[in-house]
Amino acid sequence: MSCSSAQPTAPDVPDYIKVRRADIDKALQNLIPTSPEYPPLIIEAMRYSLFAGGKRLRPILTLATADTVEPADTANNTDLVRPAACAVEMIHTYSLIHDDLPAMDNDLLRRGRPTAHVVFGEGVAILAGDGLLTEAFRILARWPDTQDPAVTTRKLRTIERVAEAAGSKGMVGGQTVDLQAAGQVPDRKSAALDENGLRAMHERKTGALIRASAVAGAIMIGASDDKIDAIDSYATHLGLGFQIIDDILDIEGTVDILGKTVGKDAAAGKPTYPALYGLEKSRSLAARAIAKAKQVLHDCGLSGQLDKIADLVLARKY
Amino acid sequence: MSCSSAQPTAPDVPDYIKVRRADIDKALQNLIPTSPEYPPLIIEAMRYSLFAGGKRLRPILTLATADTVEPADTANNTDLVRPAACAVEMIHTYSLIHDDLPAMDNDLLRRGRPTAHVVFGEGVAILAGDGLLTEAFRILARWPDTQDPAVTTRKLRTIERVAEAAGSKGMVGGQTVDLQAAGQVPDRKSAALDENGLRAMHERKTGALIRASAVAGAIMIGASDDKIDAIDSYATHLGLGFQIIDDILDIEGTVDILGKTVGKDAAAGKPTYPALYGLEKSRSLAARAIAKAKQVLHDCGLSGQLDKIADLVLARKY
Repeated sequence: MSCSSAQPTAPDVPDYIKVRRADIDKALQNLIPTSPEYPPLIIEAMRYSLFAGGKRLRPILTLATADTVEPADTANNTDLVRPAACAVEMIHTYSLIHDDLPAMDNDLLRRGRPTAHVVFGEGVAILAGDGLLTEAFRILARWPDTQDPAVTTRKLRTIERVAEAAGSKGMVGGQTVDLQAAGQVPDRKSAALDENGLRAMHERKTGALIRASAVAGAIMIGASDDKIDAIDSYATHLGLGFQIIDDILDIEGTVDILGKTVGKDAAAGKPTYPALYGLEKSRSLAARAIAKAKQVLHDCGLSGQLDKIADLVLARKY
Repeated sequence: MSCSSAQPTAPDVPDYIKVRRADIDKALQNLIPTSPEYPPLIIEAMRYSLFAGGKRLRPILTLATADTVEPADTANNTDLVRPAACAVEMIHTYSLIHDDLPAMDNDLLRRGRPTAHVVFGEGVAILAGDGLLTEAFRILARWPDTQDPAVTTRKLRTIERVAEAAGSKGMVGGQTVDLQAAGQVPDRKSAALDENGLRAMHERKTGALIRASAVAGAIMIGASDDKIDAIDSYATHLGLGFQIIDDILDIEGTVDILGKTVGKDAAAGKPTYPALYGLEKSRSLAARAIAKAKQVLHDCGLSGQLDKIADLVLARKY
C-alpha cells in the first residue's frame, strides 16, 4: 500500500522575477559598505541577515510596479527605482531581526539559519536592525544621484511614505499591538484581538510596508496620483492575502521548507486566520484577496507582472 | 565647625537658549501624534522618553547654527530648521532608549526616572526607539512643507547627512565598537581601546550626531559649503569637549544631579578620558577642545550664540 503524501513543491517562478531578484541581490551587495570607515562587526551583522536568502518580495514588487506603470523602458525604470527597492528590503530585514529578539517573538531560526541575536548576541542584533533601518533612509535620500527637481520631489515623497509605513502608525505600531495582545507588556492587560483587530494589526505590521513597497515604485517612476492609488489598493489586497497564507503556512508548513519555527503562533495562543476562521475558510479568504488584487489591476489597465506576483503569493509554500 | 561642601550649581543659561528649548519642547509635543490612527501604547512609550527633561543640546545647536549663519531673521530661521532640530532630538532619544537596554548598558535610571524598558518592558522599549528613529526621517522629509526646489534639495542633503551620522558609520557603529570593547559580544574577543581607539569610538557614538545636528542647521538655512565646513569643524571640537566632560561627570557627578547612574563606566572597566589621562589632564583637554571650537567660529566670523553653547558645554554639571 502506497500512501506517501507528496511534498509541496515551490511554484514555478517566472524568469521576470528571477532576473529582478538577482538584480536586487547584486545591488544590495554594492549598497552595504565594506570600507574600513565602517566598524567591521556591524557590517558583518547587517550582511548576515540581509543575505540569508530572502524571497525579495517587497523590492520585486517595487520594480514590477515601475515596469507595470511604464512598460516601455524597463532598464531605465530599474535604475530609477532600484534604490527604493533595496531600501524597503533593508527595512523588512531590520524588522525581522527585531521581531526575532527574545523580548519579542524569541525565535531562534530564520530562513534556515540561527537568528541574528543567536549569532551576534542581543546587543549587536538590535544595532544591526538599527543600522539597516538608518542606512535605508540614507539610500532613499542619496540615490538615484540627480539634481532633477522632479526626481528630488519624488524621493522626498517616497521617504515620507516609507517612513509612515515602517513607523509607529504602521509596522512598529502593529508589532506593539501584537506584543500587547500576547500579554508581553508588563502591567498592561493583554488586549485579545477579534477579527477586526487581527486584520487591523496585520495591516500595520505586514500590510503597510508591502503597500509602501509597491507605492514607492509608482512614485519614483512618476505615476499619476490615480495610478498610485490603484497600486496602493492592489497592494492592500495582496498584503492581506500574503498574511493569511503566512498564517496557514505556520500550521501546514515544515521547518525544512519554511526555514523558521512553525506552529509557534498557534502554540502561543496568538490570533491567526486559521484559528479564527478554520483552514478551509482561510484558504478561500486568501484566494478572494488575491482575486481582488488582480481585479484592481484589470480595472485600471495595469495587468502584467503584478498579476504574476499575486499568483505567486497565493501559491507560495515558504 | 562648618564644613559643608557647596553643591555644584548649574551654570547660568542665557535667555536665548531658554527660549529655544521651550520652542523645541512645544514643537516636539505637536510633532508626536496622538490621533487614534496610532496605537496608544507606542505613542505613550515614545513620549515617555522624549519628554523626560532632556537638555535639548542637539536641537538648540541646530537652531543656533541657523541664527549664527543668518542672524537677520531668527523667526524665519526657526521655521525653516525647526523640523530638523526636532528630528535630531528624536534620534538622540532613540539612541538613549536602545543604549539603556539590558543587552547594552543595562541602565535602570535616566534623567531621574526609570528607563523605558523598566516601565514598558524590553519589547516596547525597543519599538519606542525604532518608532522615534523612523518618525525622525518622516519629519525630515515632510517639513517644512514647501515645493521650493532649493529647500527640497536641502532636505534631502540633511536626511543623508543625519542618516550617515546616526547609522553604521556613526552612532550605531560606535555603540557596536563600545559593546565589543566591553566584551559583550559572544565568541568575539573584546578589543580594548587605546587613546586613539577611545577617541574614534566617541567620534562615532556621540560626536557624529552632534556634528550632524549643527550641520543640519547650516544646510537647511542655505549656508555656503565653506560655512558648512566651518560649522562641522566647530561641532567636532564641541563634541569632543562634551564627551570628556561626560566622562568627568560620570566620576564627579551625583545621581541627584545627573539623574542617571554614576561611576558605571569606571566600574565596568570601560575606557574613559579620566581613566586614560587622569582627572586634571582630562579637564584641560576638555577646555582645550572648547577653546578650539570657539577659535574656529572666530576665524570664520561666526561668533555669537554658538560661543555661548560651547561655554555651557564646558561648564555643565549634568
